[in-house]
Amino acid sequence: LRLEKIGTVRSPWRRREQAPRQGAEAGATAVIEIEPVWREALEGIEPGRHLWVVCYLHQADEPRLRVHPRGDPSRPLTGLFNTRSPARPSPLGLCLVEVLAVEEGRLTVRGLDAIDGTPVVDLKPYLPGVDQPRRTP
Amino acid sequence: LRLEKIGTVRSPWRRREQAPRQGAEAGATAVIEIEPVWREALEGIEPGRHLWVVCYLHQADEPRLRVHPRGDPSRPLTGLFNTRSPARPSPLGLCLVEVLAVEEGRLTVRGLDAIDGTPVVDLKPYLPGVDQPRRTP
Repeated sequence: LRLEKIGTVRSPWRRREQAPRQGAEAGATAVIEIEPVWREALEGIEPGRHLWVVCYLHQADEPRLRVHPRGDPSRPLTGLFNTRSPARPSPLGLCLVEVLAVEEGRLTVRGLDAIDGTPVVDLKPYLPGVDQPRRTP
Repeated sequence: LRLEKIGTVRSPWRRREQAPRQGAEAGATAVIEIEPVWREALEGIEPGRHLWVVCYLHQADEPRLRVHPRGDPSRPLTGLFNTRSPARPSPLGLCLVEVLAVEEGRLTVRGLDAIDGTPVVDLKPYLPGVDQPRRTP
């Protein structure tokens, strides 16, 4: 199962310890540099829109079965898939961002928690309704 | 950039044409069979919870730069990353599901639009707030 890198994160965070733990806490902006061959695929993406950014967490630790939520040893261990820990068998990060600017294959976004140099493997539009829990009938 | 298959979708849809286009339209339930080695990582996931299911769309078409939204030729072409088309360079599907049951490495879920046999590469808890657009201050 192989992925293609379609871009690279440019962010203020050089090391994992510096990066905010969730995009929600990431007040600063980041840039996604899109590979030239995929730039045309950005057509229609405009400032103010929200996107899912799927990153490949290349510096993630080896996957574990159980982790402390948010890396906090005072919180009891729970199943890996019950957390957003990067120590996953498929080290994918999922982050909802707001598009601030689109220019020459560079997306400036708010809400991305990835460190500088992180490969981006996919971008998807946020779909209200579809991407929200629904009430059970 | 490599992924690990952590499970397999068991759904009523045998061919792409049969599958609903978004999980939101998927009234039927599906089962995710988790690989034995990763079953312990489900700990803490309970019925009623919402999860992101990341699938590897093994039957997706070759990636394109521009597509018709929802495959509808009457809608104008737009950039691939402005759509959820499966014809992506990294053929990942992202689907929010509700957990209906968890038993012996089998997750029964509502809202999954993948065809039978689709590899699952990741599961993540839905985080209210983090996974929703925020108001700009």
